[in-house]
Amino acid sequence: MSKVGIIGYGITPFTKKDQKIESVLLDSARQLFRNNSQINREDVDAVLVSTNNNSKYLSPILSEMTGIQPKISHSVESLCNSGTNSIVSAYSYIASGLANMVLVTGAERYDSPGQILQWDNSRGEFKHPIFWASIFTKSYKREFSISDEQLAIVSVKNHKQAKENPNALSNKTYTVDDVMNSKKLTEDLRLLDCSRPCTGSASIIMASEEKAKQLTDEPIWITGIGQKTTSAGFTKNTSFSTMESTKLASQTALEMSKKNSKDIDVAEIHDAFSVCEPMALESMGFTAEGKGTDMVNELHSTNNFKINPRGGLIGTGHPLGATGIAQTIEIVQQLQSNAGKRQVDDPNVGLVHNMSAAATSSTVLVLEK
Amino acid sequence: MSKVGIIGYGITPFTKKDQKIESVLLDSARQLFRNNSQINREDVDAVLVSTNNNSKYLSPILSEMTGIQPKISHSVESLCNSGTNSIVSAYSYIASGLANMVLVTGAERYDSPGQILQWDNSRGEFKHPIFWASIFTKSYKREFSISDEQLAIVSVKNHKQAKENPNALSNKTYTVDDVMNSKKLTEDLRLLDCSRPCTGSASIIMASEEKAKQLTDEPIWITGIGQKTTSAGFTKNTSFSTMESTKLASQTALEMSKKNSKDIDVAEIHDAFSVCEPMALESMGFTAEGKGTDMVNELHSTNNFKINPRGGLIGTGHPLGATGIAQTIEIVQQLQSNAGKRQVDDPNVGLVHNMSAAATSSTVLVLEK
Repeated sequence: MSKVGIIGYGITPFTKKDQKIESVLLDSARQLFRNNSQINREDVDAVLVSTNNNSKYLSPILSEMTGIQPKISHSVESLCNSGTNSIVSAYSYIASGLANMVLVTGAERYDSPGQILQWDNSRGEFKHPIFWASIFTKSYKREFSISDEQLAIVSVKNHKQAKENPNALSNKTYTVDDVMNSKKLTEDLRLLDCSRPCTGSASIIMASEEKAKQLTDEPIWITGIGQKTTSAGFTKNTSFSTMESTKLASQTALEMSKKNSKDIDVAEIHDAFSVCEPMALESMGFTAEGKGTDMVNELHSTNNFKINPRGGLIGTGHPLGATGIAQTIEIVQQLQSNAGKRQVDDPNVGLVHNMSAAATSSTVLVLEK
Repeated sequence: MSKVGIIGYGITPFTKKDQKIESVLLDSARQLFRNNSQINREDVDAVLVSTNNNSKYLSPILSEMTGIQPKISHSVESLCNSGTNSIVSAYSYIASGLANMVLVTGAERYDSPGQILQWDNSRGEFKHPIFWASIFTKSYKREFSISDEQLAIVSVKNHKQAKENPNALSNKTYTVDDVMNSKKLTEDLRLLDCSRPCTGSASIIMASEEKAKQLTDEPIWITGIGQKTTSAGFTKNTSFSTMESTKLASQTALEMSKKNSKDIDVAEIHDAFSVCEPMALESMGFTAEGKGTDMVNELHSTNNFKINPRGGLIGTGHPLGATGIAQTIEIVQQLQSNAGKRQVDDPNVGLVHNMSAAATSSTVLVLEK
């Protein structure tokens, strides 16, 4: 199978702006082409749009606005991991030989309809994700004797890291006390434990090995892909304190890339809520079960940006369809030693973890120089 | 590259039923598994949903309802050719080795939000497709001196053929006079010249060569794929009397399958409106420019079901996200000599043409025994 590389990217600031979805999409795609003038629009075979927005035909619209006449064009939706689903689709188009170069653009507005999963009756009256996040938090705290303060460190660390990310929604730092004193949304969840929906867009361009080597000196290769959907309904999860789909997706991705979690130098983790970061770290084997908050605390106290260097979803904001692509861009920047004050020391292997709907589905990607 | 085959299908009647989208989706998938008990749900690696419905996370929902825990799951949207976009995605997942077996389910409700493209300002006050269809019809008639009566034969033929399709929305036959006397919607378009949105669902299961040969005696192979998006806005079309995206997509598909249009024994053509059938036939090289209605008339008068055997969109109805998949199922049935009274004489090579938004994008597939 031909190797597939990421050869360019564009990203917008994440904001609370009220902006038409077409224009949000265009912003990061235009920046991508501005940053990569060596890429000829005529060579782009496919344009995939990742979004939960209800507007239709967005990929042909983006194509027309950017001056591309692709073969393949459509939108991809899978709630919060739409972005990495699009990247995997782009990968398969290239690896199968149907395309040589694919533009993947994710975009969302702050008022995305993807925040609420109407279908999931197991959420009772509470359709909003804070419902499952509260149950995850309660369950995780009980099972591993973890305190609210220990979980608050996830938010403190990720806000601190987001401050070094010029595109992040947040540019404030907080203490554990600040998190503990922020508005209590449920018994187990405070406002600063939550990522916030926002307006933003992220684009990458992917290419076959031949095209990638022609067009850039430092392509980043996608060497591992893992995906798993265990259910759609939240209560079908086998556990509320581990992430089964994440565990299975990471096993597949690491196996494909012939790596294990110890080889990962930098990772983007889907911290939709504080509890998600330690749970995901444990489910992917970065640390033992119940030890995720210890790992987070250790990283925070040594000022090590290894996990969620751009500030995670909590610090950066969460424009659903753009998130997986923005996470991937961060790992590309890290592997290219181009991450400014967020730069991790000389990383060779990076990982992206992107999930949906109470971890009922997950994508894990392994990226290498 | 590994060959990719279609190994099973399920389809619902196309109706005007008011039914939840999740239940519409489930109907054809359930029928697929009922018809193909040799297929183990545990072996299904990916579930793709094709729809314009605004509900989110439909692929994990369908997966949970059918008892599948796939790796890959998401929705695909590209207005009226969402179905074939999903099929091409499934193809690439299998050909790239990321999946061995993929379920592709398309579904729509009669009130699909995909009928109107709000973004396209070039449609003026008339967002509904009858606007572009009227301009296509006027332009085609003027350029090739074609009469309304000649175009009406498309509707007469396709309604006649739909009568042999137990799943079709229409079960009536009409004369040229009936079409001419049906409600005049615009100067150039009558009610019976139009396909009608409806509720319906269609599912296929695709597999790698090895799996396909294991699981069925008569897989149908996808040997040619062509796709092209020329624009999103209707007035960017270079012509209103030929279909540029269809022409380019068919060239790619025929080249990939090492066939030419003379080799095609049976074809499903995207006749959203009467004028689309002759235009598409000409753009794909089935006949010369301006001669499409002669070909339609010849087929009709000899009772030859070669083009749109199931009754086309005009006779069968047009549940947007399901249409491309339903077209593909018809060709599979034809190639397996399993099309009942619609059966074309011993076909070896079939073609599917599925397009969106005034032919601003097209997919063409070539299928073989």
